[in-house]
Amino acid sequence: MKARVIVLPKEGVLDPQGKAIQGSLHALGYDAVTDLRAGKCFVIELADLPPGKARKLLDEMSEKLLANPLIESWKIELETA
Amino acid sequence: MKARVIVLPKEGVLDPQGKAIQGSLHALGYDAVTDLRAGKCFVIELADLPPGKARKLLDEMSEKLLANPLIESWKIELETA
Repeated sequence: MKARVIVLPKEGVLDPQGKAIQGSLHALGYDAVTDLRAGKCFVIELADLPPGKARKLLDEMSEKLLANPLIESWKIELETA
Repeated sequence: MKARVIVLPKEGVLDPQGKAIQGSLHALGYDAVTDLRAGKCFVIELADLPPGKARKLLDEMSEKLLANPLIESWKIELETA
């Protein structure tokens, strides 16, 4: 089964990378962009597991390795539900 | 309107970051992970535009700045369709 983990800076946490990219987009003339947050995406191929179990496993992996729980939040998306 | 751009290494392009993370997950005992690709995620707040126009704009931005078209592919997801 395939899953996606999206890791983003928590609301309220400064995101200098996102701000820099937003600034560059404005410099290129893309003024329609009013906010941008930059994060990470992990596309994970997993052995077949019941969705609940897969979600629990991915949550554990995110907390331990993929994200920094102090400043980042994550969202798990299973492609085969 | 809100949109998401997911940037990933193209199929067939080496992904050393993904491989390193996969190795770390295995070392932590997460053997269920059979493949992992690491990419970027941009959550973008845009001025209201027709979906077709927004998609075109985001595609242009991805090609020019958010991704490296030689080695990365991207996917645009509009949250308000």
